Amino acid sequence: MAAAAAAAAATAGSGPGGVPGGVPGGVRGPVLTLETMNPAVRRVEYAVRGPIVTRALQLERDLQQGVPKPFTEVIKANIGDAQAMGQKPITFLRQVTALCLYPELLANPSIPEDAKDRARRLLAACGGHSAGAYTASPGIELVRQDVARFLQRRDGVTAEPGNIFLSTGASDAIVSILKLLVSGAGPSRTGVLIPIPQYPLYSAAIAELSAVQLNYYLEEERCWALDGAELRRALAEGRRHCCPRVLCVINPGNPTGQVQSRQCIEDVIKFAYEEKLFLMADEVYQDNIYAEGSAFHSFKKVLFEMGPPYSEVVELASFHSISKGYMGECGFRGGYMEVVNMDPAVKEQLAKLVSVRLCPPVPGQIVLDTVVSPPQPGEPSYDLFMAEKQAVLSSLAHKARLTQEIFNRTPGIRCNPVQGAMYSFPRIELPPRALAAAKAQDQAPDMFFCMKLLEETGICVVPGSGFGQREGTFHFRMTILPPTEKLQLLLEKLSSFYTKFVKEYS
Amino acid sequence: MAAAAAAAAATAGSGPGGVPGGVPGGVRGPVLTLETMNPAVRRVEYAVRGPIVTRALQLERDLQQGVPKPFTEVIKANIGDAQAMGQKPITFLRQVTALCLYPELLANPSIPEDAKDRARRLLAACGGHSAGAYTASPGIELVRQDVARFLQRRDGVTAEPGNIFLSTGASDAIVSILKLLVSGAGPSRTGVLIPIPQYPLYSAAIAELSAVQLNYYLEEERCWALDGAELRRALAEGRRHCCPRVLCVINPGNPTGQVQSRQCIEDVIKFAYEEKLFLMADEVYQDNIYAEGSAFHSFKKVLFEMGPPYSEVVELASFHSISKGYMGECGFRGGYMEVVNMDPAVKEQLAKLVSVRLCPPVPGQIVLDTVVSPPQPGEPSYDLFMAEKQAVLSSLAHKARLTQEIFNRTPGIRCNPVQGAMYSFPRIELPPRALAAAKAQDQAPDMFFCMKLLEETGICVVPGSGFGQREGTFHFRMTILPPTEKLQLLLEKLSSFYTKFVKEYS
Repeated sequence: MAAAAAAAAATAGSGPGGVPGGVPGGVRGPVLTLETMNPAVRRVEYAVRGPIVTRALQLERDLQQGVPKPFTEVIKANIGDAQAMGQKPITFLRQVTALCLYPELLANPSIPEDAKDRARRLLAACGGHSAGAYTASPGIELVRQDVARFLQRRDGVTAEPGNIFLSTGASDAIVSILKLLVSGAGPSRTGVLIPIPQYPLYSAAIAELSAVQLNYYLEEERCWALDGAELRRALAEGRRHCCPRVLCVINPGNPTGQVQSRQCIEDVIKFAYEEKLFLMADEVYQDNIYAEGSAFHSFKKVLFEMGPPYSEVVELASFHSISKGYMGECGFRGGYMEVVNMDPAVKEQLAKLVSVRLCPPVPGQIVLDTVVSPPQPGEPSYDLFMAEKQAVLSSLAHKARLTQEIFNRTPGIRCNPVQGAMYSFPRIELPPRALAAAKAQDQAPDMFFCMKLLEETGICVVPGSGFGQREGTFHFRMTILPPTEKLQLLLEKLSSFYTKFVKEYS
Repeated sequence: MAAAAAAAAATAGSGPGGVPGGVPGGVRGPVLTLETMNPAVRRVEYAVRGPIVTRALQLERDLQQGVPKPFTEVIKANIGDAQAMGQKPITFLRQVTALCLYPELLANPSIPEDAKDRARRLLAACGGHSAGAYTASPGIELVRQDVARFLQRRDGVTAEPGNIFLSTGASDAIVSILKLLVSGAGPSRTGVLIPIPQYPLYSAAIAELSAVQLNYYLEEERCWALDGAELRRALAEGRRHCCPRVLCVINPGNPTGQVQSRQCIEDVIKFAYEEKLFLMADEVYQDNIYAEGSAFHSFKKVLFEMGPPYSEVVELASFHSISKGYMGECGFRGGYMEVVNMDPAVKEQLAKLVSVRLCPPVPGQIVLDTVVSPPQPGEPSYDLFMAEKQAVLSSLAHKARLTQEIFNRTPGIRCNPVQGAMYSFPRIELPPRALAAAKAQDQAPDMFFCMKLLEETGICVVPGSGFGQREGTFHFRMTILPPTEKLQLLLEKLSSFYTKFVKEYS
């Protein structure tokens, strides 16, 4: 072929790219450049792992190589990564998973029998009784059944295994649903309503899919509550230039830590019904509720308690994950979604779409199964499981209060109660000279602050601009995950850095 | 908000969807229907898990419920799922992974020390020393270094950890690269050259991304070789209506079983250089080479042996997986890609894109690490590891020959040698009356044949139309993975069913 190719090259000329092809000595730059690449991918932003984290990793390497810094450790409070912050895995989850991966351990007398029973039951549901086989694309049927039972217990409402799709973390499922929903061009392009501040997976997926992002602002003054009038404003504005078809809600809120009231959820469902919106409910923090008087109400439960016409019509996809809660098993990439009132033909399309990626990771499916069907009273693992779970959750509740207290002691910082989830999202006043200095460096003012904080203290938090915030306000997101004593130290260090920063730029 | 929402609904009118919104008693159908959904997703097809597999699962359920069938078992020879077919996992891989997931096992005296050393080394590289923490988005740095060392040994060419991106199986990485490459509209839309027959992940991803699929046909008569003239034809034709920028190659071939010669690879690289094409090399079957005289040559190695200008310019992404080879660890969803000569600014965009999904599953990263850095001579696990690996590979080689022999004994079936990978893709002659019967049922003729085969024998194979084939030719893809004796029986059963089928429709 070589000679023929050379001959062809002489006649082939240049492609539509315009650069000559095989001309000896001719220019042959790269095919793929910033200019020629997918512009939708270029528009994607993901602050949680953005430039500030890149810098944090650099500083970590510097420290390792002995470069002197004003701190001895970089603290990555940028991401909800419980085990990276020292949280220990729940023993039962890991026992069952290890047994499934290495069944020789079934003979090990030091692992309790209920863990072994689970492992045997799960392995029997795997192809060739092995965790190394592909599963059905929506997940192991048995695990889907266990998830359905879990949902029935949680909501008191029937759940169908056929409506459950296991996923590679919640992100994967959220993107799958958005993919289905995006269509049209120009004024009929799908608009997606998202809360601001939001978890940037939403804006990233919307950018990648070239959908239209429609922001509704949460009310910081009312503890980041979702406001109906604001939702209507955002919808009306969106209708002027696109076709809003999706409403995303994050409850408990990320990054806000807000827990929605039952009434609020009911209002949102009515709104979705009346305005013909597909509801996406991100409920990955459903186990993380700390504030007194706050309780988790699932959208599914409220929808069915409202009854017809809502319960028969409103399309809902709700998402859960093994990465958060008391589990913190981020590395396994496990999760699921439940779809309700989805057109059966569309559900088939969803099943087809997920089949292209074959199946979610089996270890994550196994962990998920142990989460939705935990040890029961009387089983050998029950006491330890409950003790470990409670220890994690009560420590998180304590750290939520601690965060709020220490931040609110500092003039210029205002932190809403962390009612749920894993983050504080305090508001910071920044003096005009700081804004000017940020502008001079072509940085958002809160990015400027967070970068300075990182360089001086080693504390890595994410600027509010990465999540969205009302114009002229500034925030950062910080996890509540470090061990209590360390967190207390961090909060105090951060607060005093802020005070110093304000003085410096006043 | 409820009352306000109702008032708003009265004035909101209908969205661009055209269906009235909150009109009391008005029509309120679903938001998401086949008509309103993403048309690109609707176009996606994925035969390997398509209608024939749905029917196979149904038949399996029927059997379980005691419905009488002319067979006692459904054999899923539709997918390269080794462990589902009874292949045992490689002990060392599972030991290291189980140790990482449940480090209490480090005290277990029955697990060899080298597995424990690996686990300790990997855990030290995980956040909080836990497999439950997120890793860096391109994967654990240590694993990327181990992959780079593996590639250096394999190719004799430097490999940079910074060019390695771990992934959720190879599919994930392939889609990520395609995402970067797709841009433009109308005649400047990205065209992607793919072999026919192909692995349908390519056509599915191209459909989903609304890129333009450009088919180059492999030469069945020359054992499915890649033909340079055909490649040029496909490119020239593509240039009439789009902007061809990507050339995909699958070597060893899926579904063809072809292993490319070094010369062929060199010719493809020259072609990509001359015609300004980005090369994607799917090399997931690199360990699966059976035919005498066949050898695996990586595109990276050949590219660097060719030297400048090729080695300095041609952009290459090559893909590998833990799902195939001797490992067959499909359920873990692990893999990696190496990018070569990628514009650094684009590489940053790739890093950003993968960061949105946080990280590949950690258990899959761990298995991958053991694959690229297997036990060494003198280590306690070496002998068992080598014995297990060789047993799998020599059994596959035997089954590849067996498949070809039995099929070629049957008049009307012609099967090229299975030089590599895990599939046979025999050609079958179908009599005109069978074609007419298929047409009457609105089915592709080979789908008609495969469905009849499934209903009568319980053998599930995928029709050639799911992979693409020359007009008027018919094939099916069948894995060589069932245990030898079972495979022999299956092949004989399939062959005699074919003979009967031909007689019936003649």
